Amino acid sequence: MMALEGLRVLDLTRVLAGPYATMILADLGADVVKIELPGVGDDSRGFGPYTNGESAYFMSLNRNKRSMTLNLKSPRGKQIFRELVPLFDVLVENYRPGTLDKLGLGYEVLHDLNPRLIYAASSGFGRTGPYSRRPAYDAVVQAMGGLMSITGQENGEPTRVGTSIGDITAGLFTVIGILSALRVRESTGQGQVVDVAMLDCQVAILENAIARYAVTEEIPRPQGNRHPSIVPFEPFDTQDGQLMVAAGNDGLWVRLCNALGRSDLATNPRFETNPLRNTHYSELRPILAEIFRNNTTAVWQTLLENAGIPVSPINNVAQVMQHPQVLAREMLVRLAHPVAGEMTVPGIPVKLSDTPGALRMPAPTLGQHTEALLGELLGYTPDQVAEFYAEDAL
Amino acid sequence: MMALEGLRVLDLTRVLAGPYATMILADLGADVVKIELPGVGDDSRGFGPYTNGESAYFMSLNRNKRSMTLNLKSPRGKQIFRELVPLFDVLVENYRPGTLDKLGLGYEVLHDLNPRLIYAASSGFGRTGPYSRRPAYDAVVQAMGGLMSITGQENGEPTRVGTSIGDITAGLFTVIGILSALRVRESTGQGQVVDVAMLDCQVAILENAIARYAVTEEIPRPQGNRHPSIVPFEPFDTQDGQLMVAAGNDGLWVRLCNALGRSDLATNPRFETNPLRNTHYSELRPILAEIFRNNTTAVWQTLLENAGIPVSPINNVAQVMQHPQVLAREMLVRLAHPVAGEMTVPGIPVKLSDTPGALRMPAPTLGQHTEALLGELLGYTPDQVAEFYAEDAL
Repeated sequence: MMALEGLRVLDLTRVLAGPYATMILADLGADVVKIELPGVGDDSRGFGPYTNGESAYFMSLNRNKRSMTLNLKSPRGKQIFRELVPLFDVLVENYRPGTLDKLGLGYEVLHDLNPRLIYAASSGFGRTGPYSRRPAYDAVVQAMGGLMSITGQENGEPTRVGTSIGDITAGLFTVIGILSALRVRESTGQGQVVDVAMLDCQVAILENAIARYAVTEEIPRPQGNRHPSIVPFEPFDTQDGQLMVAAGNDGLWVRLCNALGRSDLATNPRFETNPLRNTHYSELRPILAEIFRNNTTAVWQTLLENAGIPVSPINNVAQVMQHPQVLAREMLVRLAHPVAGEMTVPGIPVKLSDTPGALRMPAPTLGQHTEALLGELLGYTPDQVAEFYAEDAL
Repeated sequence: MMALEGLRVLDLTRVLAGPYATMILADLGADVVKIELPGVGDDSRGFGPYTNGESAYFMSLNRNKRSMTLNLKSPRGKQIFRELVPLFDVLVENYRPGTLDKLGLGYEVLHDLNPRLIYAASSGFGRTGPYSRRPAYDAVVQAMGGLMSITGQENGEPTRVGTSIGDITAGLFTVIGILSALRVRESTGQGQVVDVAMLDCQVAILENAIARYAVTEEIPRPQGNRHPSIVPFEPFDTQDGQLMVAAGNDGLWVRLCNALGRSDLATNPRFETNPLRNTHYSELRPILAEIFRNNTTAVWQTLLENAGIPVSPINNVAQVMQHPQVLAREMLVRLAHPVAGEMTVPGIPVKLSDTPGALRMPAPTLGQHTEALLGELLGYTPDQVAEFYAEDAL
C-alpha cells in the first residue's frame, strides 16, 4: 500500500510548479490523470534536451502520471471534463487566475459538479491582490520576492538560484495545502480552494532575512559563501578544487585544528572563541587558506570527515549522481521510457517506513492513456472515443 | 475551524529544518508543543539579532507554538516524556540519527507507547546510508548536493543560495510526509516513520539538471541570471537599478519591442524568432542594454507591466516588505511578543478558502507553558511541577 493510494487527481498543470506538485502526489501513490492539449501537450514537452524526440525536462517531472488529451475549448471536450470532475478528489491547475473561469470551468461550476473536490491553484501571484492576473516566470518571482537580492558573491551581483526554486517551493506548498484540505474533508465532506502564489512562497522562504531586517533595518545583501557570523564556515581552495568547511562551534574548531596538524591555532588566544575568530578573520583566513592549498580536496575531505568536521566538496551534478549517500538513499532512479529508453530521474525524498512511495511508470507520451482512461472512468467505447477524436475533442 | 485543528504535535526540533516544518503545521492549526532543553532552549534562541534579548531568528520560526522545558537526560524528564507520547499524533525531531535511541527514546520505544504516533525525523543525511550519522549544516548540504554548482554568475564561482534552502526544503518535504502518513493512519490506525534527509531534498530540487546531464552528459554550470535558451530573459541595468525582463515567447517579444518604442526590432528578420534571437544574442543584447539605460527602473516597470510583459525590479528585502501584492496577500504579519514587542514575520503561503491558517500567538519564551501544559495534559499540580523543577527535570 502507498500513502496516497486511492487518491484521484485531475491534473491540468503545465511546465513546472503544478507538475512538480502532482509528481509528489503521484510518487506517494495518487492516481494522477494529466489532461493535455491535443497535438501539443504540456508546454514542457517542447523544452530540450531530447532523447529520441522526448523532452528530458518533461520526463523528469511527469513520471507516475497517465496522460489523456482533452480540448477544453470544444463543447464535447467540456462535456467530458464535466463528466470527469465528479470522479476525482483533487483538481490541480497552474493557469493564470481566471483562465478556467473564461472556459466556464471555474471553481463554482466544478464545486457544483463535485462538492468534495479540492481545487488547488498554483499561480505566479495568487487568486487575489492587484498582481493576480499578471503573468509570471520563475526569474521574475525570484527578482520580485527578494531571494536574488540576498544570493550572490559578497559585494557581487544579485544572483538567480540555479534551479527554479520559485516554481518548486510553490509546488511543495501546494501539496501541503492539498493534503491539509483532504484532512478537513474527512470531517466536513466538503472540498475547498487551495490558492498558492509563487511570490508568497518566496516571502515564506526568506525566513530570518525578514525578521533580521525588521529588527536591524539593515537591508540584507548577497552573502557570498561565507557564514555571516561563524568562522571558519566557508569554502577553501585546495590543490584541485574547493572544500566547504563548516566548523559550527568551538569544539569543532579545536578538532579542525588538530586534524590539520595545527593544534597551535586551537590554543592561540586570538582564535579561541567564535567571536575572536570573527574579530581576527582577516588574519585567520590566509593561514587556513594556505594550509588547504597544500593538498587535494579528496585528501582533506577524508581527513576532516574522519575527524567529525562537517565538510564537503562543492559537487557538480555528475559528482552528485555518483555520491554514495545519494545512491544509498535511492535518490536516483532509472526508468525505462517506451520511446526515450533508459532515463535517470530524481528519486523520492519523502521516505515512509511502512507505505513508501514508488516510481511505477515513466512519463507518458502525449495522450498515451486517452482511450484507456475514457473507457475505465466513463465507460466510453473505442468507437465513441474515435468519434471524439474526429470532433477534435481529444 | 483550521485545517489541522486537533492535531497534536510533540516538537523536539531545533534551529531551522524541524522548526520550519512544525511552524507550517502550527500555522495551519495544529497544536504544537515545543520541548526545549531547560535553561538553554532551542539553539536558535542564541542567534542574533535580538530585540529586548529575544532572538529575531527564533521568533520568526516558532510562532503559534507553546514551549515547555524538559530534561530528557533525567529519569523524571524521561518519565514525563513517556507520559506525553501517548497523547500526541505526531512527533517531529531533527537530531542526528541515533540521538534519541541513545536516550532510550527511539522509535521502537515510542511506537510501543503509542502505535498511532507518526515519528518524523529530518536530518542532514537521513536514517540510512553511509553518511547517516554525520553532522550537516545547510552550507555543507548545498555544496554536496549540487545546488551551489549551478548557482552563480556565468563563468563565476559556485554560489550558496542566500536563504537556507537545504533546511527549508527538508522542512517542507517533512510536512508532506507527515500529512501523508496521517492519511494512512486514517485507514490502518498505525503510525510510521517519516525519514527526510536534507541531501535527498537537494537532489529532488535539482529537477531538470539531472535529466539534462543524464541526456547530454554536459555538466551544468552556474547559469548566471540569463535564461539558458530564451532571449530576452534576463536583467538589464537601468538609470538607477536593474529590471528583470522575461519575454518568454515571440508574442511577448513583439509587445516588448512596441512598448520600448522600437517596433523596428520586432520586424528585424535577425530577431524574429527565439532561435534567431539566441543566434544573434551578442548583437541584440547591447541594443536592448542601451535602451534600458535611458530611463529609471520605475518608468520601465510601469511601461512594460502595462504592456503585459513579465518584468520586475530586483527587490531587496525592504522593497519586498512594501510590495503591494505581498501586502495584499497578507504575507507579512505583525505579532505582539510579550518581551520583544511588535515583530514582523512572514505570513502563511498556503491559502485555504474555507479553513485558513492563522497567526494566533507569538513565539513562546523559554518554558512559557511548562506548568500549564503539565497541568492540562498530564494533570500535574503546581506543587508537583515545582518538585520537577527542583529535580532538574524541567
